[in-house]
Amino acid sequence: MSMIETPYLLFLGDAPDQLAAKVAIGIKDWRPENAVGQFRMEGCGADLGLTDMSLVEGRKAGAKTLVIGVANRGGVISQEWKKVLVMALEEGYDLASGLHNLLRDEPDLVAVAEACGRTLHDVRVPEVDYPIANGVKRKGKRCLAVGTDCSVGKMYTALCMDAEMRARGMKSTFRATGQTGILVTGDGVPLDAVVADFMAGSVEWLTPDNDEDHWDHIEGQGSLFHVSYSGVTMALIHGGQPDALVLAHEPTRDHMRGLPGYSLPSLTALRDTALPLAKVANPNCEVIGISVNTQHMGEDEAKAYLAELEAEMNLPATDPFRFGAGKLVDALAAL
Amino acid sequence: MSMIETPYLLFLGDAPDQLAAKVAIGIKDWRPENAVGQFRMEGCGADLGLTDMSLVEGRKAGAKTLVIGVANRGGVISQEWKKVLVMALEEGYDLASGLHNLLRDEPDLVAVAEACGRTLHDVRVPEVDYPIANGVKRKGKRCLAVGTDCSVGKMYTALCMDAEMRARGMKSTFRATGQTGILVTGDGVPLDAVVADFMAGSVEWLTPDNDEDHWDHIEGQGSLFHVSYSGVTMALIHGGQPDALVLAHEPTRDHMRGLPGYSLPSLTALRDTALPLAKVANPNCEVIGISVNTQHMGEDEAKAYLAELEAEMNLPATDPFRFGAGKLVDALAAL
Repeated sequence: MSMIETPYLLFLGDAPDQLAAKVAIGIKDWRPENAVGQFRMEGCGADLGLTDMSLVEGRKAGAKTLVIGVANRGGVISQEWKKVLVMALEEGYDLASGLHNLLRDEPDLVAVAEACGRTLHDVRVPEVDYPIANGVKRKGKRCLAVGTDCSVGKMYTALCMDAEMRARGMKSTFRATGQTGILVTGDGVPLDAVVADFMAGSVEWLTPDNDEDHWDHIEGQGSLFHVSYSGVTMALIHGGQPDALVLAHEPTRDHMRGLPGYSLPSLTALRDTALPLAKVANPNCEVIGISVNTQHMGEDEAKAYLAELEAEMNLPATDPFRFGAGKLVDALAAL
Repeated sequence: MSMIETPYLLFLGDAPDQLAAKVAIGIKDWRPENAVGQFRMEGCGADLGLTDMSLVEGRKAGAKTLVIGVANRGGVISQEWKKVLVMALEEGYDLASGLHNLLRDEPDLVAVAEACGRTLHDVRVPEVDYPIANGVKRKGKRCLAVGTDCSVGKMYTALCMDAEMRARGMKSTFRATGQTGILVTGDGVPLDAVVADFMAGSVEWLTPDNDEDHWDHIEGQGSLFHVSYSGVTMALIHGGQPDALVLAHEPTRDHMRGLPGYSLPSLTALRDTALPLAKVANPNCEVIGISVNTQHMGEDEAKAYLAELEAEMNLPATDPFRFGAGKLVDALAAL
């Protein structure tokens, strides 16, 4: 993945509602300095509260890339979108997208981009020849969230911890391994699209030597207990050489995401499975805390649940998005 | 991977020695019925003891595919090889190869194959759109060897067990997941070249529903303790849903292959790591025995080591290639 040039103008297109603009919301929440404004088409039902700008106004405000921050309907890039995207290239924007429907598969966009000397970024497609992992110990510190299931808040955990560390003046970098994370930060590794032999190597590549007091917050993927994606999680644990693991959990699920009949492991089982595997690559690794996605719980219920977990597991527990990542960062600082 | 048509004529080219013909030897050892003869060029230092045949003689003997059973020098397909390969296509052979230098990247071979209506099989390249794993329990039984390290004899273990079962009249299939295995059997999944998200799904695809008393012997890859490839191993454990695990080990290594500084895990650690992970996909999974690669030990030493292991681990232990796979198959039959 070549670096995506910032700042962005966020393309919301004709998004029917706020939910469809999830990627744009992620960028605005986590890297507001990367978003100079929003571009909305007629009938757009999403609004990030950013300044509405035309393509020309966006360029004047400094935007270098038009980021498609919205899901497309029916899996195709519509003619209405195309008009805007072609104009954007002609105005001097690069385009960046995490859509399944790749920009590079649209001959008209490719031709215009070439003619204008602009770049099309499809963040689902690896563009680097990653090495095979060599397991050599790297300088600096790394933190990885591992989940009882997929989609339990591992990316938000990493982003929250990174934001908290930077707010405290600590050295910290969020390392994206998925489409949204890559668009939020402008670079990363689209790990689920990397060829098997190079998965762990791509994670090593993503988290190179750094200052001894610098923390990489590596975006987690999948779960050791999710049979569809556990290999990807394994590569993060061994390629990432984490010094610290955070256990991530969503307590209201009754089965693994997309796998009816598979129940979620306990946090104890997750700890006892992930930590010995992590110690293969980094014998000093420790489990430092628990991150709970409490979005489906009332505030009192969430707080009671977290207090109970802390007593049971003898680890700090928080919902970093709702109650802050302070406890988790304290635990890292104490290592 | 589309099925490679058998039987084969084995191309040994100008192999400097027997070692360079490793793939051809594997085919001759494990599927002698697939090899009608060998084709050797001037100066060839390898000899499988098969009938030397010209391309025309091979076709008359029924050969459908010329398999490149030898490593090429310097990573390129030489002009001398090309002459033979082009003639083979013209004689009506398909070509199959596990070389890094792909057949399909040679414009002359592609053009001739097209003109003659023949197929070029590069077994390093997946040709199937594998699904994402769904974890649904499949009928029939599956056995997987997991290793303390890479290259400790997992493929030979599976091939030996498969051969022993078939000799006993039991229902059994070897399922190839690597280049050599695919060339030996004519099909399989080149797992190390599959995109991360589809690894476990490709293993499900490879080992579909079958008779309740049928065993798939899935070729293992990597090791849970090898940081470069552990994700691939994980996908085999979860995609394969094994009913039985065999622990594979090579006792004379002093560090993990290609990873100086990483020591091998004990067989106990391997058992205690692999079995709980396997039970996620198949709660009935059991560790049924130990396969030791004793090629660097004298016969008495090997036998003493195996006896010691059996007492220590309370599991049958053998070198299936040297002493037969009977003990391991007995253990499967007793499940």
